[in-house]
Amino acid sequence: MTDTALMTDRYELTMIDAAMRSGTAFRPSVFEVFARRLPGARRYGVVAGTGRFLERVAEFRFGDAELAALRDGEVVSPELLDWLADYRFSGDIRGYAEGELYFPGSPILVVEGSFAEAVMLETVALSVLNYDSAVANAATRMTRAARGRPVAEMGSRRANEEAAIAAARAAYIAGFAATSNLAAGSRWGIPTMGTAAHSFTLLHDSEAAAFQAQIDTLGVGTTLLVDTYDIEQGIRTAVEVAGTELGGIRLDSGDLAEVAGSARSLLDSLGATGTRITVTSDLDEYAIAGLQASPVDAYGVGTSVVTGSGAPAAGMVYKLVARQGDDGEWVGVAKQSEDKASKGGEKIAVRTLEHDVAVEETVLRSEDGEVPAEAAARGRALQVPLVSGGAIDERWLGAAGVEAARERHAASVDELPADAHRLARGEPAIPTVFR
Amino acid sequence: MTDTALMTDRYELTMIDAAMRSGTAFRPSVFEVFARRLPGARRYGVVAGTGRFLERVAEFRFGDAELAALRDGEVVSPELLDWLADYRFSGDIRGYAEGELYFPGSPILVVEGSFAEAVMLETVALSVLNYDSAVANAATRMTRAARGRPVAEMGSRRANEEAAIAAARAAYIAGFAATSNLAAGSRWGIPTMGTAAHSFTLLHDSEAAAFQAQIDTLGVGTTLLVDTYDIEQGIRTAVEVAGTELGGIRLDSGDLAEVAGSARSLLDSLGATGTRITVTSDLDEYAIAGLQASPVDAYGVGTSVVTGSGAPAAGMVYKLVARQGDDGEWVGVAKQSEDKASKGGEKIAVRTLEHDVAVEETVLRSEDGEVPAEAAARGRALQVPLVSGGAIDERWLGAAGVEAARERHAASVDELPADAHRLARGEPAIPTVFR
Repeated sequence: MTDTALMTDRYELTMIDAAMRSGTAFRPSVFEVFARRLPGARRYGVVAGTGRFLERVAEFRFGDAELAALRDGEVVSPELLDWLADYRFSGDIRGYAEGELYFPGSPILVVEGSFAEAVMLETVALSVLNYDSAVANAATRMTRAARGRPVAEMGSRRANEEAAIAAARAAYIAGFAATSNLAAGSRWGIPTMGTAAHSFTLLHDSEAAAFQAQIDTLGVGTTLLVDTYDIEQGIRTAVEVAGTELGGIRLDSGDLAEVAGSARSLLDSLGATGTRITVTSDLDEYAIAGLQASPVDAYGVGTSVVTGSGAPAAGMVYKLVARQGDDGEWVGVAKQSEDKASKGGEKIAVRTLEHDVAVEETVLRSEDGEVPAEAAARGRALQVPLVSGGAIDERWLGAAGVEAARERHAASVDELPADAHRLARGEPAIPTVFR
Repeated sequence: MTDTALMTDRYELTMIDAAMRSGTAFRPSVFEVFARRLPGARRYGVVAGTGRFLERVAEFRFGDAELAALRDGEVVSPELLDWLADYRFSGDIRGYAEGELYFPGSPILVVEGSFAEAVMLETVALSVLNYDSAVANAATRMTRAARGRPVAEMGSRRANEEAAIAAARAAYIAGFAATSNLAAGSRWGIPTMGTAAHSFTLLHDSEAAAFQAQIDTLGVGTTLLVDTYDIEQGIRTAVEVAGTELGGIRLDSGDLAEVAGSARSLLDSLGATGTRITVTSDLDEYAIAGLQASPVDAYGVGTSVVTGSGAPAAGMVYKLVARQGDDGEWVGVAKQSEDKASKGGEKIAVRTLEHDVAVEETVLRSEDGEVPAEAAARGRALQVPLVSGGAIDERWLGAAGVEAARERHAASVDELPADAHRLARGEPAIPTVFR
């Protein structure tokens, strides 16, 4: 199903209906996506999902099936149904490039259009960004904790089946090397990996027979899962069957630090000095960090990355920050409980740098989205054009968009001060300053 | 996209490839889905996603696009590509009816077929069941904590956009009254709700103008969001504009117990004694329980239900428990670290009752899926046929399947002992006994 336009909270449509009635539906408006805080008291966040969101915008249309569903459900008026039939987003969207880092209050996405056409995108924008960023927020910490050793995402079975594909994509953007998910490979060009599960060994009459079948099919460079029965015997059998050129073994149980150390010694004693060790059992960023001194060559992470490692939604919100009145004047708006002085109005942002190290997330009011020269000179302007007059910038789409996001992420992480990489809870790595 | 067959971990296919090589791929096999424990030390779990899984099975085909992706990625051998082109699941699946409760070790799904055709469904089965059940596991506690007051699911923006639809469905099965998600309404027949957000009030020149527009469009029975500026003034304005027949107000900020009490007093003093109060800010089962004594009429829950309220994946696994050898003999199998005596082999289950109260989850070995008469007499057999010889039982599909699951859930919850409804961490409400 591609009923994207129905991936929407009902109140978005009832609001438009009522605003059409009061003559306010087409007031020029500005919505902003931002996060009030970083989930889990982490040091930085990672914007992920932007490319997927833009693909959703492109297909956000009310076709016959969607209109019939709304008509049958008596959700909206006949007048609104007519308007929806022609709906396509015709405004402008700019925002942080996918893969970019964010901090509390960063204006991650700025959506300009009539109230009606911009409010319509609220639910799908937040669904995409909140989930994908939650995964990237966890993945970036795991990537860093692994200190250059490759990390593979293999959590598909612990996430909704479509979310799993998005998770593989977000983790890859945040530095993971590969995914187990074939659809993520097919849709987004992400490298896929994986060889065998315990069931494969149990299917065969012996572990040796299973290993032989795998090597016959996938070659001696494959990775054998050696812990179905006894790990030491499994490793001996693996080397007997494959020879010392065996590509790798995978360990999926036990105290991994201890098991990996023993496995390395045994492999070396058997002459399999080049055989790599992958570990995979319930890893998260803390477990990975705890294995830094162990002879592990690669990590596989499942549940913790696809569920955001304790923070399964990024907490981003989509708020009206400015709209015109009937007199054509722009009015900055915010709910009473917000700090209106800093939060209302349209904003731009600069990552202010000193000696190429990030020192401040600088957020400025802007009527036109332009970055003042003085601010720009002190760092990097963070917003890029995503949609202009309804036309989506294709740079951010598809597999090319994913690669661009992965590069953006790596470059932005490199700018962070060293403290940003502490895993413990704490303050954001740099302060957000509203100037 | 409907590339369901690629919602699969790569190793499922490489295992089949290697098993075809060793001549074991078509050994008759039995896989079982179960959970080793209840997440969050809860008292019971809720099976959700079964109907969605069956719809995935129906569309699990390798079409030209999927085969091309595998060919281009050099994932599998040409021989396997040929086999995949004709793949459709032709085996049997039985399992717990959707909405049924589960406990540690409950044989939730039993998949029988050749190793190749059954292992293929592992990833998608777990993706669907682990996410949907995680949501239902949280939702059932919220439903119960609300003690008959309606709870609406409005967390779409805090979940992947497709996951959001599944979450709405799972929450409804676990007793929620409605969802904000229009696609969930359209796809699954779930009642949808929602009226307006703060942006609607901010769009207008005054709160009164916004309320008037909403009432003109949605009628006086609508629910007005009264906390954009000052709650007391908001309520006064709401009653001034709507009159005392106003359907409801929504409170989305502040200390809800206090705010709800004040709002009720004010509404009553204004004569709006029938106006209902809905509360919606960051609720979970504990917050709902804390509002039991407050004059709240309805709850709206977002983040916590769609993220499983601290347990975002249900932890179910899909394990080979038996397979035939070349001699035609069945062999019960399990990884070494499992308790092989209790876990290997094909199983059936009975909810053993005394005076209509559940006292034990009885799990028995069975070669044929039949429930012994003696066990059946002591309670309810828990497995139902889902797929027979590849033919899916249509009772479990679509909106009718959702309604059946909702009824099953309610009836099964009614059988639980009273202790099952304590929110605190603890032991499962009934023990699982392998007999």
